[in-house]
This record gives sequence, structure tokens and C-alpha cells, in this order.
Amino acid sequence: MEQEIRTLFWQDGAVVMIDQRALPLAERQVICTDYHEVIAAIKDLTVRGAPAIGVAAALGIALGARRIEAPTSAAFLNAFEEICRQFAATRPTARNLFWAIERMSRCVAEALQARLPKPKGLASGISFVEIMSPSAPARPAEKEEGDSWQPVRETLVAEAVRIGDEDVAINRRLGRNGSELIPEGSRILTHCNAGALATAGYGTALGVLRAAREAGKAIHVYVDETRPVLQGARLTAWELMREGIPCTLITDNMAGFLMRQGKIDLVITGADRIAANGDAANKIGTYALAVLARAHDIPFLIAAPLSTIDPALPDGDAIPIEERDPGEVTHCGGVRIAPEGIDVYNPAFDMTPHALITAIVTEAGILRSPFAEAIEKLSPSSSTD
Amino acid sequence: MEQEIRTLFWQDGAVVMIDQRALPLAERQVICTDYHEVIAAIKDLTVRGAPAIGVAAALGIALGARRIEAPTSAAFLNAFEEICRQFAATRPTARNLFWAIERMSRCVAEALQARLPKPKGLASGISFVEIMSPSAPARPAEKEEGDSWQPVRETLVAEAVRIGDEDVAINRRLGRNGSELIPEGSRILTHCNAGALATAGYGTALGVLRAAREAGKAIHVYVDETRPVLQGARLTAWELMREGIPCTLITDNMAGFLMRQGKIDLVITGADRIAANGDAANKIGTYALAVLARAHDIPFLIAAPLSTIDPALPDGDAIPIEERDPGEVTHCGGVRIAPEGIDVYNPAFDMTPHALITAIVTEAGILRSPFAEAIEKLSPSSSTD
Repeated sequence: MEQEIRTLFWQDGAVVMIDQRALPLAERQVICTDYHEVIAAIKDLTVRGAPAIGVAAALGIALGARRIEAPTSAAFLNAFEEICRQFAATRPTARNLFWAIERMSRCVAEALQARLPKPKGLASGISFVEIMSPSAPARPAEKEEGDSWQPVRETLVAEAVRIGDEDVAINRRLGRNGSELIPEGSRILTHCNAGALATAGYGTALGVLRAAREAGKAIHVYVDETRPVLQGARLTAWELMREGIPCTLITDNMAGFLMRQGKIDLVITGADRIAANGDAANKIGTYALAVLARAHDIPFLIAAPLSTIDPALPDGDAIPIEERDPGEVTHCGGVRIAPEGIDVYNPAFDMTPHALITAIVTEAGILRSPFAEAIEKLSPSSSTD
Repeated sequence: MEQEIRTLFWQDGAVVMIDQRALPLAERQVICTDYHEVIAAIKDLTVRGAPAIGVAAALGIALGARRIEAPTSAAFLNAFEEICRQFAATRPTARNLFWAIERMSRCVAEALQARLPKPKGLASGISFVEIMSPSAPARPAEKEEGDSWQPVRETLVAEAVRIGDEDVAINRRLGRNGSELIPEGSRILTHCNAGALATAGYGTALGVLRAAREAGKAIHVYVDETRPVLQGARLTAWELMREGIPCTLITDNMAGFLMRQGKIDLVITGADRIAANGDAANKIGTYALAVLARAHDIPFLIAAPLSTIDPALPDGDAIPIEERDPGEVTHCGGVRIAPEGIDVYNPAFDMTPHALITAIVTEAGILRSPFAEAIEKLSPSSSTD
């Protein structure tokens, strides 16, 4: 049994991550000792995949908080929020990024509030936000010790590490739930990388396939190479080969033909953000696969943790779609493939309407149409409490 | 006005072709003085595109015939047929290859027959095949001059050159016919390269777009990069930029999302072989585009000369689909992108059922459903007479 893939983790006061730009040609780690390095790693795809981006942001925020020097809690919080804003500006589509930032923000609020001496006779309902509000009068009860943030910092590191650990546990539950939908002998198409590398470990869509294998099922995976960044060819292929899961690499434009040939029983992908009605943003090309799967009467599954769900968005058209550098399209493997000066359109994601989705596999169970009802019944934050 | 692209031609006893492997990074020619070099050029995609393959085979066969030394017409024909067999074995899908070989075979038959002195009193219905048949008695009237094949060779070169010249003329007619289907202001998606580079010149699908521009229409072309060999990113982008036709490069998996965004009014591709019922084989990924176009109610056009039609095949499932080297998928721009040892499926073509095709644009007019009837009314060879 191969050692488990640990995509990113906290170690000796640093954020350590597999360098996903280098895979599969080289297996190496990037060690970030400054939060700006984590921000750069998210932007340049050293770490990618919605859940992994969330974990990276949590660890990166904890890393940044270790350097905050502030005379007051309000100043500490201001500095903390500035760090969060920088992480929020890295990539717009993955819901898990904002979910992780929100969770770290709740954590710091509670940690800072815990430092306050219990005020006598004060209604317990007063929130930290009110206390920190600039319009609120300075509270004489607050202890101001600019050099004693260590407990807050440790709390934040512990929370970030917990987010990563929980992610792996969530993916294992999600995987077990989803494996019931994988028939023995299935030939499964997947797109991009929704594997261990897209998460803290185990993976979402590939977690379902791992769980199916652990349950003793024979499967064969067709891997879309997933241009422009080739997460399929580089990362999913590497993960599956590493675990001995039989797989075949294809270019993205072959998937439809394989379906017509009867070679695909099932499609499963991850998601970067899911709206309240079940519409799902995922790697560019996912929408086309969903249309093709429907045309061939093939089940189309999404596997994603609840932290991917954004109940504030009524539908997928409200999901922001990141456009990335044209160089990703004009180059491949670092080599220019298109004429100089060519105009390029490079949306990193697309949106699959819920009507094309057969089921959404989560750690809380399998959601089916009507998705709006199924999602409303869930409390997305419940999994993290 | 840019000089016209001359993809391949006969010059000073050699076959000259643009090296399409080098584009767009380098513009250079390959000069073949031996027919084996033309065979290699077809196999390694120095020249590609169904009509261009046909012209290359014709020129290559003429080149090979110049070296045939034979004591008798039967021996000359044997050597000629051996050359044809080698060209027929280069690539299996493009109908135009076999069409060109058949035409060169008819030409040599007529040229060899013309060498015979008119036998007195012989019924004029006796064919060359009978004359050449081993079972036929040697005809004392036949002149055997092993060193006087020059007229036959010149006839073959002239025929090959004519096939190339006709191809350009056919594409211009085809383009004019198809341009009627291109509305002013259209945003058009194309796949692979069905341009001047896929033909002797002017192009089929891109010929339609050239003709639309020549008719004064404003168009914008979205170019699928067309993995694995990137004919879109490398060749179509180069051709369109060279002529100042506005275009935007995308990866193949973006096409569906663009359709959903309402950015595509029309899809047009070439074809490598069209069966009697209108089913069309074309570059891998074409089928998926046709399914996606139908799902979005977008017209899907095929542009191809009549020499692409194979009336002997009842439907597209009988069209042989070439599978090419896995290295095309595991590498991109010469650089490895996938793990060593990964299993690969690499069909170079797929098949689009006629039911997904809105119209087939030919030099003889626009074919529409029912395609079987429309194709039956045509004599595929009529265009060449």
C-alpha cells in the first residue's frame, strides 16, 4: 500500500505543500514560511482544487497571524482582516476559500473575545463584532498586551490544522457515501483533478473511486487531460497510477466519442462552488461533459464537501468565473504552441445547471433533485461544528 | 493582401510542401525528391487534412512513377500499384487519399493503353485491365520499350498537378456556396484545420469563411486548439491571423460553455470521409461539438469536396478510425506532460451521425437532410471530369 498523499500541512511553523506545478515529472515540496508565499502558491497553482485552496488559505492565514504585532485587539483584528482580504483576492470561484476565511475569522473573533476579562453584569449576547466596532466605545475592561498574542496565534494554527484534518475525514465519509453509486466493473470518466491533490487528502471525486476500490469493486477510470493546465494528465493520472487504479488518459475532446462508443458508464467530477439550487461551477469542460452525458443517458455525478455549497447564491449564473492568463492556452508544458499575438479566451471554470446533474455526493449523504430542497435541509456549516 | 497559402505543389521534379509540424513557430518547406519522403510526410503530419493528403498522394505517386524502370507495361503497372499500396497504407480514414489513388490508377491505365498501337478490327470495348491481365495472352501488337516511359510519367505528373489545381478551384466554389449560410456578424466555431493548409489551397471550412469575408461579411472565429496535435492552435490560428480574420483561441473543452453563453452562432468543420447516408468522420472532438451544437440549437455545418464522399459505405460506423501514437497525448509541444507508463487511447477521428448535421457544403451545392437522397443524386466523380 502506497503512503497516503498529504497535499498540504502545517510543520514546524511553516505551510508545506506538494508542488503541483511540478507533477508528474518531479515530486517536490514547497515550504512557505511567510503568508505571501502561500498567496503566491494559490495564485500560481502550486496548490489548487477548491478544498485544498480552502485549507491552504486557513493555514496561510494562521501563518500570517503569527507575524501580527498589534497594540490592541482591534489592531490585531485589523491586521488579520487585511491578511484575509489578500487571500480572498487570490481566486474568485472556489467557495471553500471563502468558507475557510469565514471560519478563521470566526475563530479569531472567539479567541480575541476569550482574552477579555468577563465583564460583570454584561448581557452575554454582546458579540465581539460589537466590541470591535469602531463606533463602540473603547472598553476599559479590555487588556491590551501587544506582546501576548501567542495563545491567539496558537488557536488559529490549531483551527487551520483542524480544517485540514476535517477535510480528510469529510472526504472519507463522502467517498463511502458515493461508492454506493459506483457499480462493479464501471468505466468512469473524470475531469480535472478532484483527488487527494485537490484536498488535504483522499479527494472528493477520486475519493469516491478510492472508496469503491476499498470496497473491492473493479473500476476503470478514463482521465480527461483537462487543458489548459492539464490537471488530469498531470495529477489525476499520477494519483491513480500511484494507487494502481486502472486508468486511461484521453484528450478532453475524446470524451464524447467514448460515450458514443459505449465506453463510459458514469461521469464524476468535483465542484468549486454549488449554488442553492444545485447549479455547480467546476473546471472548464465540465458543462460540456454533463451535456454529453445527458445525451448518452449516462449518470453525471458531482462529489463535493458541504463547504463547497454557497446557499447565498440562488443559482449558478451568480457564481463568479475566473479568467486566467492567456499564456495557459498559448503554451503547453512551457512551450509556445500558438501564434504570437493571438487573442485568447481562458475561463478556468464553467457552470453546470442542476438539471444535468444526477446526484451531488457529500459527506452528509447523496443529494438528488430537487436539489434546492435537498440543499435547504442541510446546514452547510454543520459539518464543521 | 497576403500572398495565398500554397500548401503543396510540384516544382522542378520534386514535391514541395509547407512543413505543418513546424507551424506556427517556423515557416519552412519540405522538399521531397523520393516518393518515400512523401509517404513519411503524410504519416508524420508534415502534410495533413483529407484533401491535402489526397493531393500529396497524387503528387507522391507521380514522383514515384518517375523512377519506375520496367521492361513491359505490365511490369510498369505492377511497380505503380506497389507505390499506390504504400500510399494507401499511410492513413486509413481520409477518403480523399483513396480517391486520389484511384484517379492516378485510372490515369496510368489510360496512359499505358494509349501507348498501344490501335489494333485493327478489335472491338473498342476491350479494356486495359484485360490487356494487362496475366491470364490474357501477350499481345504481339504491344510495344515494349523499357526506356520510353517518359510520356506516361509526364501524364502522371500532369494529372497530379491537375488534382491539386482542381482542389483549389473546388474549394473556391465550395466556399462561395457555403458563404450563403454565414450570416453577417456571425460568431463561428471551428475545429482542427480545414483551411488552406488542409487542402492544396483556400480550404474547405475556412474556405467558406474566406468566401464570407470576400463577400464583405464581418465574422469572428473561435478556434478550438484541437488536441492532441493542436491543428487549431497551430494552423487555423496562423491562417486566420495571416489574413486578418478576427479570431479567438480556446481549448477544446471551452466550446460547450461558449455555446451556453450565447457566444457561438454557427459551427463549421471539414470532414475526412462522408458515408452514403451523410454520417461524417472528422477530427476527434467533432462529434462532441455536434452534440453540443444540437443541445444549444446551433447550426452544425460540414464543408467538404465531393471527393470526401464514400458512397460505398452505407453509414459512418463502417468508416475506419485511425488510432495514433500515444506520444501525441502524453506529450505536448514536444514536452512530456503525463506520467511515464500511462495507458492512452488516441483515436485521431470520430464520427458524427448525419442526424446532427445541419448541412454539408460541397462544390456542387449545399446538401441537406435527407442526406442519403442528396448524396445519391450526386456523382462523386463528376466534379473531377
